[in-house]
Amino acid sequence: MQKLYEGKAKAVYTTSEEGVLVQRFKDSATAFNAEKKAEFGGKGELNNRIAGIVFRYLADRGIPSHYIETPNTRDMRIRAVEIIQIEVVARNIVAGSLSKRTGLDEGVRLSAPIVEFYYKDDDLGDPMITDDHIRILNLATEDELATLRRMALEINEHLIELWKKCGLDLVDFKLEFGRVDGKILLADEISPDTQRLWDADGNRMDKDVFRRDLADLVETYSRVHAQLIAAYPEYDFGTLPEAPAER
Amino acid sequence: MQKLYEGKAKAVYTTSEEGVLVQRFKDSATAFNAEKKAEFGGKGELNNRIAGIVFRYLADRGIPSHYIETPNTRDMRIRAVEIIQIEVVARNIVAGSLSKRTGLDEGVRLSAPIVEFYYKDDDLGDPMITDDHIRILNLATEDELATLRRMALEINEHLIELWKKCGLDLVDFKLEFGRVDGKILLADEISPDTQRLWDADGNRMDKDVFRRDLADLVETYSRVHAQLIAAYPEYDFGTLPEAPAER
Repeated sequence: MQKLYEGKAKAVYTTSEEGVLVQRFKDSATAFNAEKKAEFGGKGELNNRIAGIVFRYLADRGIPSHYIETPNTRDMRIRAVEIIQIEVVARNIVAGSLSKRTGLDEGVRLSAPIVEFYYKDDDLGDPMITDDHIRILNLATEDELATLRRMALEINEHLIELWKKCGLDLVDFKLEFGRVDGKILLADEISPDTQRLWDADGNRMDKDVFRRDLADLVETYSRVHAQLIAAYPEYDFGTLPEAPAER
Repeated sequence: MQKLYEGKAKAVYTTSEEGVLVQRFKDSATAFNAEKKAEFGGKGELNNRIAGIVFRYLADRGIPSHYIETPNTRDMRIRAVEIIQIEVVARNIVAGSLSKRTGLDEGVRLSAPIVEFYYKDDDLGDPMITDDHIRILNLATEDELATLRRMALEINEHLIELWKKCGLDLVDFKLEFGRVDGKILLADEISPDTQRLWDADGNRMDKDVFRRDLADLVETYSRVHAQLIAAYPEYDFGTLPEAPAER
């Protein structure tokens, strides 16, 4: 196995099988374009489990993704895709950068969800971009962009339902997509690292606990996982083999 | 006369005439959200003359604006409009924030012009916004937004022609618009403060000489004005009455 890529929260490895990769969930958390950084024992396993549940839930509702299976506590087997260099953000409630950009208060519920695009480029600080910028940067075709927007809104509807049954409000989330065999697949991960989830008392149940020093990250993610498997026991992985220490 | 508003480069006054205001061009220049600031004797008069020429040139080509007339060296009589809180930017060549946002080199010519919107809000630092943000902020209706985009592209075509005859390349520019009697009018000013103009040798002939300390601002703006009245003598104001010192 060869390490293909190492990011802030995951590393991706080749496998002996053609077109199949393994993404390993790390215990690191970063925020503010990696200016804030810390290690949290248990985070990688929690996000691997949560993302695996979410991908299977979405697959059962017709959303194709790179997810294949969850072989152990830290690893996810995925289809190899060409990642589209756009971060797709969907929002239901004002929070974070949308509040900073518009001056609207956090917590304001939007009359309809909105989709934003960001250029996936750490050196540039992942800036927001428009359809025109995507065209001049050749990041996606017009058809692909329409697909990303449509899929983000569909996934939003499914995730709102998913989290509502867990007693959580879906505020916003970030998606990445990839191309394979002329198809667009949902890629990367969906976890409390990539979504904002608020409970009925307004508590943050996501990476904002780390960004804003509000609560213990692992305790928070554990509660999200517990609520998820309580609401959807059919997607619980139960006991998983221990991950190999080194890949 | 009462001062209605004072901005970084202009102040606006009421007049005795209903629906008519005077905008006075100041000698101040600011950059980087007013972090850099200086006074340039003569700048106000040059921008008043240049903007007056450009508004009349555009009016003759069917672009309605708030411009009425130029009564003296520093003042422009304008129609009172309700300013739309959106800065509309059109771009032909990569420069400035588009280069920072996309990583594309300054000077790259776009295959087609693009239009960007910014939220006119100093406290927020005039952030870029999308059509969705404009909708949730109630800054303009969908019809108005389509009009702004269409007018910006039309004005771009006219300005490219205007400056080409002066030996200058129109790189990008910022427009503001206002509402009056259910109509959208071009407002604010069009001057070397609000456009990027490059000469055939690649020299900046606009506020970048101040932003980047490249050349004398008043000398640069004087050359732009001289090239403009040489190419379009029919729009030259010639001698104008001296402006009253105080309004």
